[in-house]
Amino acid sequence: MLTVMKFGGSSLSTVERVANVASIIASGVNDDDRVVAVVSARGKTTDELTKVRDSITAVSVPRESDVLLSTGEQVSMSLLAMKLNEMGHDAVSLCGWQAGIRTNDRYGSASITEIDTSRVLRELEAGRIVIVAGFQGVSPNQDITTLGRGGSDTTAIALAAALHADSCHIYTDVSGVFSANPNVAIDAIKHREISYDEMIEMSTLGAKVLHNRSVIMAKNADVSFEVRSSLTNDEGTKVHRLAPEKTVSGVVCDDHISMVTVSGIDSGASTCRLFELLADNGIPVDVIIRSQQMYNGKGMVSFSVSDTVCIRVVDMLNEMKDELEHDMLMVESGLAKLSAVGSGLADSCTVASIMLSELNKIDIHPRYITTGEIRISVIIPSSKADMAQIILNKRFFGEE
Amino acid sequence: MLTVMKFGGSSLSTVERVANVASIIASGVNDDDRVVAVVSARGKTTDELTKVRDSITAVSVPRESDVLLSTGEQVSMSLLAMKLNEMGHDAVSLCGWQAGIRTNDRYGSASITEIDTSRVLRELEAGRIVIVAGFQGVSPNQDITTLGRGGSDTTAIALAAALHADSCHIYTDVSGVFSANPNVAIDAIKHREISYDEMIEMSTLGAKVLHNRSVIMAKNADVSFEVRSSLTNDEGTKVHRLAPEKTVSGVVCDDHISMVTVSGIDSGASTCRLFELLADNGIPVDVIIRSQQMYNGKGMVSFSVSDTVCIRVVDMLNEMKDELEHDMLMVESGLAKLSAVGSGLADSCTVASIMLSELNKIDIHPRYITTGEIRISVIIPSSKADMAQIILNKRFFGEE
Repeated sequence: MLTVMKFGGSSLSTVERVANVASIIASGVNDDDRVVAVVSARGKTTDELTKVRDSITAVSVPRESDVLLSTGEQVSMSLLAMKLNEMGHDAVSLCGWQAGIRTNDRYGSASITEIDTSRVLRELEAGRIVIVAGFQGVSPNQDITTLGRGGSDTTAIALAAALHADSCHIYTDVSGVFSANPNVAIDAIKHREISYDEMIEMSTLGAKVLHNRSVIMAKNADVSFEVRSSLTNDEGTKVHRLAPEKTVSGVVCDDHISMVTVSGIDSGASTCRLFELLADNGIPVDVIIRSQQMYNGKGMVSFSVSDTVCIRVVDMLNEMKDELEHDMLMVESGLAKLSAVGSGLADSCTVASIMLSELNKIDIHPRYITTGEIRISVIIPSSKADMAQIILNKRFFGEE
Repeated sequence: MLTVMKFGGSSLSTVERVANVASIIASGVNDDDRVVAVVSARGKTTDELTKVRDSITAVSVPRESDVLLSTGEQVSMSLLAMKLNEMGHDAVSLCGWQAGIRTNDRYGSASITEIDTSRVLRELEAGRIVIVAGFQGVSPNQDITTLGRGGSDTTAIALAAALHADSCHIYTDVSGVFSANPNVAIDAIKHREISYDEMIEMSTLGAKVLHNRSVIMAKNADVSFEVRSSLTNDEGTKVHRLAPEKTVSGVVCDDHISMVTVSGIDSGASTCRLFELLADNGIPVDVIIRSQQMYNGKGMVSFSVSDTVCIRVVDMLNEMKDELEHDMLMVESGLAKLSAVGSGLADSCTVASIMLSELNKIDIHPRYITTGEIRISVIIPSSKADMAQIILNKRFFGEE
C-alpha cells in the first residue's frame, strides 16, 4: 500500500503541528505500507518571502522569484524529515528537482509535464518515508519553477498518479467537503463522497478547500483522493469518479463579486472585442447578461468579476473607450455569487425554482441568474449572503 | 576579464547593502568584463535557521540540516539577481547543484571534489552576470550538502580556479589584512600584499578575515585573491604566491584560550594516547609543553585549547582516568595566544627576543612559548592582550 499525503502550510505552522503531521505520517507506515508526503511552505512563509522580495525591488523577475519562493517548502520538508528521524523513522526530503517533478518554464505558474519517479521509488524501496516539496519543479533548462496557486495539491495528485498510489490524502484545515460553508451554516453536512465535477465546480465557485486546477488534474488522471483535517485525522470526503449522483451537493458562496455594466456598446464586433480583451488580460468573467433592445444595434452587457480585479477592468475599459465606443460604465460592488452545485442538476427542473422561492422568502430577488451543466448561480447583495446560505442549506440538506 | 567576487552575509544584511553589492558587481561588468558573484546567507539567517531546527528536534540529522541551511544562500542569491535585473543587468542565480559544485557526502562539512563549469560558462557566454550560492554543493547521490565553516570563501576560490578567473575579490566587513587587529591597534597598517602561508597562519591563529581552509585551497590551486571591504570597495590586500617576504607581517591574537595541564602521566604510551584521543574527537591543540622530571618516568603535559571546547576536554579526560592513569587535571582560563607571523621569521633570530623584551616592558612574562616555521606564539593573560598587540604592532610596524 502506497499513500500520498499532502499537508498545507497551516498544518505545519508550529512546532506542535509539525510533530502532529509527523505522527499522522508515521501511523501510515508499516511493514508493507509506504508514505510519500507532499508539503507546502509553513504558515505565512510565502507571504514573508514575498514581502522581502518587494522590499528589494518592484520589478518582477519571475525566474528569481521562483528561486526565492521555493525555499519555503525546502524549509518545511527538512524540518518534517528531521522530526520523523527523531521518532525513529528513516525519512528523506526531496526538492522538486530531486523528486523528478519536471515542468515547463512558465515561472510562477508552471505546469508539470512529466514526473521521473526513479529517485522517489529508490528511496521507497530502501524503506524510507519520502517528503517532497510541493508547489515546485524543475524546467528543461534545470531551473527552479513554481506551480502557482494550488501548487502543492497539484504536486500531490500528479505524484499519486505517477506512482500509482493506492490512496491520496489531502490534509487541510477543514475536515472535508461540506454542503455549505460550515462556518456560516452550522448545520452543513459533510459529504462522505463527491464527484470530480462537483468538486471542480465548487472549487471554482468559491469553496476554499482546494484549487480547481488540482481537481481538474485529478479528474483527468482519474486519481481519487480524500480531503481530511490534519488536526483530527477523521475520515473526510472522498473525491472520485464513481460518487453517487446528487441533485444538489453543495451551496457555495463567493462574496467578493462586482458586476460591471457597459451600455451603448455595439452588440457585434465591440462586444466580442470586449471579452477578447478580458481574456487576453487573464481576467475570468463569470455571469454574463446581454440586452439588445437599444437603437442602432447598440445594447448593454453586464458581467461579474472578482473584487480584486474590478479596478483593473474599469481602467482597461476606460482606456479602450475609443475602440469600444461605449456610452457608459457602471460598477456595482458589495455583491456575492451564490451557487447550487450538483451532478444531478442537469436532469432536475426544480432546483432553480426552489432556490428562487427560498430566496424570495427572505426578500432576496436576484437580478442576475446563470446556469451551467451542474450549477445554478445567482448574484445577490453580500450582506444577505450568509442568511441565504443557511436557508438553502437547510432546504436542500436539512431533511437528511 | 573574468572576476569572481564573494560577498559575506553582513554585506547583504539590509536592502541598502544588497543594492550596494549590486552596484559593486555592476561596476565590474563591461563589454568584455564578466562577473561571477558568490554569496553567503544574509545577516543572521543561518543562526535563525539553526534556531528553528533546534526547536523541532535535538537529534542531529545532518542530511536534512543541510537541506534546511542551504535555503539561506538561495534567498540572498535570488534577491541580488532581482536587484541586478532591476538595474538593467541580465543576472541569473544558481544553487550549488545548478552551478556544478560537486562535493563528497560529508553533510555539514563537505569538500568540493569537482566543479562542472558548463552551466556557469553557458550563462557567461550569454552575457549574464552569474550569482552562485556559496557554502553549498551537491553529492554524487544528488543530495544537497554544505561545506562547513568558511564555506562561501571556499566556493569562490574553487570557482575562480575552475573558471581560470583573472581575479578573485573576497568582500568582507574589513578593508584588508592588517598588521594587527585595527579595532585594537588603531595604527595597524593595511598590507597591500601578503603570501598564502602568512595568510594561512594568521587565519589559523585568530585573524577573523577568512577561514584558513579557504586560504589553503587558494594556495594549493595557486588562486591569488584580494580581500576588500564591500562598504568602501577601496583597494584591499592581495593574497598571492609572490608577495615579498616580510620578517613580520602581522601580530594576531586569539583571546579565548585555556591551558589544560595533565600531571603524573606516563610520558610514553599514555601521553600518545592522550593526543590520539584529542585528535579522534576533532579537538585542535596548539601550544604543547612537556616536562618529564618526575619519578617513575611520569611527567606533566600542558596544551592550549579554545575556550569553547575546554569543558568537553575536561569531561573526556575525567572519563579516561582509568586508561591514562594521570594524577591531576588543571585548567587555566582567561588566556590569550599572541602570535607574530612572517615568512621571513625562519631566517631571523631577533623576533623572539624583541617580542619577549617588548612584553617584559609592560610586565608580561609568558610561561608558554611555541614557534613554527613562520610564527612565534606566546600565551599571556587575555586582560593584557590588547596592550600587548598595540605595543608589538608599534615596535614592528611603527617605523613604516
